[in-house]
Amino acid sequence: MTDAVKKIMSHYTSDNPGTRANLVRMLSHGRLGGTGKLVILPVDQGFEHGPARSFGMNPPAYDPFYHAELAIDAGCNAYAAPLGFIEAVAGRYAGELPLILKLNNHDSLSDERDPIPAQTGSVADALRLGCVAIGYTIYPGSVMWREMYEQLRELAEEAKACGLAVVVWSYPRGSTLSKEGETAIDVIAYAAQLACQLGAHIVKVKLPAEHIEQDAARKVYEGQKIAIKTQAERVKHVVQSAFDGKRIVIFSGGSKVTDEQMFGEVRSIRQGGGFGSIIGRNSFQRPRDHAIKFLHTVMDIYSGAIE
Amino acid sequence: MTDAVKKIMSHYTSDNPGTRANLVRMLSHGRLGGTGKLVILPVDQGFEHGPARSFGMNPPAYDPFYHAELAIDAGCNAYAAPLGFIEAVAGRYAGELPLILKLNNHDSLSDERDPIPAQTGSVADALRLGCVAIGYTIYPGSVMWREMYEQLRELAEEAKACGLAVVVWSYPRGSTLSKEGETAIDVIAYAAQLACQLGAHIVKVKLPAEHIEQDAARKVYEGQKIAIKTQAERVKHVVQSAFDGKRIVIFSGGSKVTDEQMFGEVRSIRQGGGFGSIIGRNSFQRPRDHAIKFLHTVMDIYSGAIE
Amino acid sequence: MTDAVKKIMSHYTSDNPGTRANLVRMLSHGRLGGTGKLVILPVDQGFEHGPARSFGMNPPAYDPFYHAELAIDAGCNAYAAPLGFIEAVAGRYAGELPLILKLNNHDSLSDERDPIPAQTGSVADALRLGCVAIGYTIYPGSVMWREMYEQLRELAEEAKACGLAVVVWSYPRGSTLSKEGETAIDVIAYAAQLACQLGAHIVKVKLPAEHIEQDAARKVYEGQKIAIKTQAERVKHVVQSAFDGKRIVIFSGGSKVTDEQMFGEVRSIRQGGGFGSIIGRNSFQRPRDHAIKFLHTVMDIYSGAIE
Amino acid sequence: MTDAVKKIMSHYTSDNPGTRANLVRMLSHGRLGGTGKLVILPVDQGFEHGPARSFGMNPPAYDPFYHAELAIDAGCNAYAAPLGFIEAVAGRYAGELPLILKLNNHDSLSDERDPIPAQTGSVADALRLGCVAIGYTIYPGSVMWREMYEQLRELAEEAKACGLAVVVWSYPRGSTLSKEGETAIDVIAYAAQLACQLGAHIVKVKLPAEHIEQDAARKVYEGQKIAIKTQAERVKHVVQSAFDGKRIVIFSGGSKVTDEQMFGEVRSIRQGGGFGSIIGRNSFQRPRDHAIKFLHTVMDIYSGAIE
Amino acid sequence: MTDAVKKIMSHYTSDNPGTRANLVRMLSHGRLGGTGKLVILPVDQGFEHGPARSFGMNPPAYDPFYHAELAIDAGCNAYAAPLGFIEAVAGRYAGELPLILKLNNHDSLSDERDPIPAQTGSVADALRLGCVAIGYTIYPGSVMWREMYEQLRELAEEAKACGLAVVVWSYPRGSTLSKEGETAIDVIAYAAQLACQLGAHIVKVKLPAEHIEQDAARKVYEGQKIAIKTQAERVKHVVQSAFDGKRIVIFSGGSKVTDEQMFGEVRSIRQGGGFGSIIGRNSFQRPRDHAIKFLHTVMDIYSGAIE
Repeated sequence: MTDAVKKIMSHYTSDNPGTRANLVRMLSHGRLGGTGKLVILPVDQGFEHGPARSFGMNPPAYDPFYHAELAIDAGCNAYAAPLGFIEAVAGRYAGELPLILKLNNHDSLSDERDPIPAQTGSVADALRLGCVAIGYTIYPGSVMWREMYEQLRELAEEAKACGLAVVVWSYPRGSTLSKEGETAIDVIAYAAQLACQLGAHIVKVKLPAEHIEQDAARKVYEGQKIAIKTQAERVKHVVQSAFDGKRIVIFSGGSKVTDEQMFGEVRSIRQGGGFGSIIGRNSFQRPRDHAIKFLHTVMDIYSGAIE
Repeated sequence: MTDAVKKIMSHYTSDNPGTRANLVRMLSHGRLGGTGKLVILPVDQGFEHGPARSFGMNPPAYDPFYHAELAIDAGCNAYAAPLGFIEAVAGRYAGELPLILKLNNHDSLSDERDPIPAQTGSVADALRLGCVAIGYTIYPGSVMWREMYEQLRELAEEAKACGLAVVVWSYPRGSTLSKEGETAIDVIAYAAQLACQLGAHIVKVKLPAEHIEQDAARKVYEGQKIAIKTQAERVKHVVQSAFDGKRIVIFSGGSKVTDEQMFGEVRSIRQGGGFGSIIGRNSFQRPRDHAIKFLHTVMDIYSGAIE
Repeated sequence: MTDAVKKIMSHYTSDNPGTRANLVRMLSHGRLGGTGKLVILPVDQGFEHGPARSFGMNPPAYDPFYHAELAIDAGCNAYAAPLGFIEAVAGRYAGELPLILKLNNHDSLSDERDPIPAQTGSVADALRLGCVAIGYTIYPGSVMWREMYEQLRELAEEAKACGLAVVVWSYPRGSTLSKEGETAIDVIAYAAQLACQLGAHIVKVKLPAEHIEQDAARKVYEGQKIAIKTQAERVKHVVQSAFDGKRIVIFSGGSKVTDEQMFGEVRSIRQGGGFGSIIGRNSFQRPRDHAIKFLHTVMDIYSGAIE
Repeated sequence: MTDAVKKIMSHYTSDNPGTRANLVRMLSHGRLGGTGKLVILPVDQGFEHGPARSFGMNPPAYDPFYHAELAIDAGCNAYAAPLGFIEAVAGRYAGELPLILKLNNHDSLSDERDPIPAQTGSVADALRLGCVAIGYTIYPGSVMWREMYEQLRELAEEAKACGLAVVVWSYPRGSTLSKEGETAIDVIAYAAQLACQLGAHIVKVKLPAEHIEQDAARKVYEGQKIAIKTQAERVKHVVQSAFDGKRIVIFSGGSKVTDEQMFGEVRSIRQGGGFGSIIGRNSFQRPRDHAIKFLHTVMDIYSGAIE
Repeated sequence: MTDAVKKIMSHYTSDNPGTRANLVRMLSHGRLGGTGKLVILPVDQGFEHGPARSFGMNPPAYDPFYHAELAIDAGCNAYAAPLGFIEAVAGRYAGELPLILKLNNHDSLSDERDPIPAQTGSVADALRLGCVAIGYTIYPGSVMWREMYEQLRELAEEAKACGLAVVVWSYPRGSTLSKEGETAIDVIAYAAQLACQLGAHIVKVKLPAEHIEQDAARKVYEGQKIAIKTQAERVKHVVQSAFDGKRIVIFSGGSKVTDEQMFGEVRSIRQGGGFGSIIGRNSFQRPRDHAIKFLHTVMDIYSGAIE
């Protein structure tokens, strides 16, 4: 095991060896294996946004095999998807790729102000399908927050007893937040903290903007002169908020941007001490060859192979 | 096993041999056995619409034996119905016909804007009655979507462990959708995707119309010039949205139309690469002899025996 | 076994011998034993309407022994009541009379627009009390329909596994229906169909009136010229709607009427092919001797002993 | 369904439709499908006798695929084997062949005088592997008989609730019997009766010899002049002892004999009214082409296609 | 995945993706990863023979860390041990090495003629410790065989449902066998067959000697002229007996021999088509540097890197 992985794993000593082994599997797999950095391919957009909006710009991506092969060929650390997409590939690519079964999902037919996803998979599914982790989305700020936190708690407890890791998508959203507030630096930092406190091993948040949502928070950010001007500074603050870097926090690629924009973001994440990216649409909405080259560049920035 | 069936089965490698055997049973039964195409007879209208509206135009159809015999004599791949209708025939026709027990149903006494069916059967019922699959209806777009998805998840997990297949009726409906939206191409494609992501082996949707419901989707359909002008093009898009043809997607016959209209639809489904039809009212609301001739023609179009 | 009973039993071939034996017990007991007709004495009015409204006009009927003896002496096929009344007599008259334990009941202190009864007994109670069947009331048309259908499903599954029969009281009621709609011919026929689809062996409905409640149904009744003018025609239509006579459907006597009115109704039920009556208030609110004579006449009309 | 199958199924009316469907599946499959006769391929000799003694004379038979393909190509009604052999083929040949999972097996390393097999599979295994039936061996005459009968009872109860059929190998053996007694006509007839009384749907016994083992029995055989001189007479008596032909009783092929010997036995079984054969060693110890021709002849004798 | 691994995995299509993934993990790990060959380090001698007899000749081997590091540094495919040794290393080396938890063990304080090990770990232990497989020892030939086979059956069913693989140590031993019989070719081949029939994914047996133990078997070996003169021929016969090479069969190194003796054995195993070795004492009783060089040579013979 590399020193980078060893250092990360030294923060997970309360977990049983099964969970630790699955974390190591993700950290050791693919092009970034052993660097302590992660690039995960998530494909839940078919469920969350509908097929055409997700795959229409790159039709081979309608095929579930496409994504497993993209993750393998690009050397991603893991592939995350809802039950159907995982069932479609788990048998065929068994043992070739760490899989994360997303246990809850939300569709966009009902665009609720205070969303709560439906549970769409179980820990038993994750075991029979050979996954290394469960994934779960919480929406801090939704009036339904308690239901989500409590369902996560139950599933995480069960997953940990079985030696699985727990990856939490922490996306602030709901009637208590302004639209801008969903990516406000104070709110994203808070969302990272919440996921860690709920027992996540890996946390996924959006890249934060400079906006501050909560008045009570603003006083501290200003009073303490917390640096949040640059993206790297904000990433650094989020990493700090995720148990001072003692929990793996990765950032979502978000909606499609140019290669250069994404490379810039990745450099900021690296500079700020982030652990990596979870890049869905920016991976599978590019043509395959482009996507692989693009992901390799992202990985090489993380590994330091290029600047 | 024919090559057509083998190819379909190669997409279900995560399932246990029991579930795979039951899928093969359906694909191998009846006049279309071995062609990779399916025509299923569903009779849940007695529950869903009431007896007179369902059977009044062809009174022999009040009799549950009538439907089992129609399915056998016409050579359908399977017969799907709620508990009562299946109990009425499972003993008498045991082993003569693959049965699908519909585990939830909704009546039309309460015409809710946001419907959710009641669970009316169980996996244990399906086993004791000798069924090859469970059926379940979801209404994407209903504010009750979460309850349905979660109940489906539980029942599907149990069914799969027992070697049963899972057939999902995915019918968009609810206050988030316009009436036109229920058969909009973007919504139907989404409904197919959702059922697949929820772990369905076979998905049933309505034939989509050219209408696009969601603004976010319209941009992609127009921007990517996704072909949706003809029925065949729309079917092709739905098949693509059902894991690029790696899940069996079949189309409902809908309310009663003329023979020629239905044959036209079937030709479009065949052209678009659809796997078949699930034809209820257009089967049992025709006089028996007519219905059998009609279903044979439908099947022969699917098999390519006629144009 | 008589041919009449054999014919009826030939429609229950999916049930286990225990359930079939209990159906045969009811069909073979009492004055109508072997005729294929049934007259059941139900006494849930004490629970449903209160004691004085139920028994005040014939005070011996306050006594639970009274009803068991009435059922025995009149030669009823079975006696149905809530837990307390059954517990009061099951030991004393053990083996003398088929008992049906009504598993849910509603009181009239809370006169809800959308009623749902409370579960007041269990399958285990039915077994320990030596009952041949469970009884259960559903209110199609209540916004609480789903809860009732799902509770019935669970109880019926358990009862059938234990060899009990399932009798469903299907009483349309609730905010989706007009008062007239509760006995509308389309609604009663639908209620009979629903109970059968939910797996009932015996269905009890009210005698339908000529009114049609649902517009969608009216089109069919008028278009198909479904005969519903006379009571006998309406009964015939309800029997048809109960799986074309392949499920036992009996009619409730309703509130108290004169002997002649009731005999007229019974003649209509016989003419329409109904399987019998379930007569509560018209039995126990008459003085005992009168009641027995009255019930004998009803039975004799059913058996054809008199016109 | 053919009349022959209908007649057989009329004897299994206490079973649920699931079990009946699986019996029909076996009776309808393969070259003898619909004739009411069965030829089953059993391959438990690898477990029972060791690999070389079982497969050494026809080395391709070491391969588990070989047997599934032999059963398919020869048109056997079903294939029976222990867990490992079934697991090796259930996924690959899913849906192509009715499978019987033998739930207990005995090896020949410990040549016990009073044998009892070990349970080596479960009903849950049978379901996940898509089997139509469980198989179970009892050794009437072993001092361990009670343990076997009781384990069979539990497994059969569970199997029947899940809609599986129960096939019992009834092999008299143990310290209470002489070697000759294991195939004595009184003992084999008794063994058939015992399996039926224990709830078997299909019983497998050895062909009986003329020897009578039990003095108490001899008196009746002689006193009543029960005909047991010819093989056909003895088969007829065994069929009579298996509920007078109301349970399916088939005969094991036993150790390897010549084609003509086996054809003679099969003619006797047919003459005596037996339902068929379960032929292991005489199938898979012949070279494949020979075996298929041999099995076709056996089947054609049963179907009456040849004498 | 390499073609060699793909070919092996094509024989495990009845298993769920979790189990398949764990088999692939073992086949892909270490110096032999991808070759289709396996060298596993087992260290249960501390339990089975006592510490001094096991580790006294190489005292660093008293330390559980020693063995995990030896397996890692030598590039073994997996490390197998009882609960204590696995618990001692699972946390420290999490994710670095596929672990096999041996679920039963026998000490040598009670040197029973008919041994049966004690269950010393559980499937839940295997999951929490991050193991890829459970291990289980059976002693065919022991009068306690039934207890072992049945316990294995239960544990294997549970393990497979959780996505774990099942490794069976099949060691003939007991009062029905002579000492020579424990490694007789007929008995070892039988032991391999039994483990496969009991549902093992990987079978471990001792290298067979030319001796034939059972008279019934001798007839076949001689009659069929089964080649068992050379070690390679005997290995080939055992591989054949393990489902004709469709189950992974590996051979134990046994008591300590010279390097050259072991290399000779390994060449025979390779020649005979064996899948590899499980080498305990010959690994950890050599000094560490020697052991690593020794194991590398063994692996290089398997991979064909050297002759």
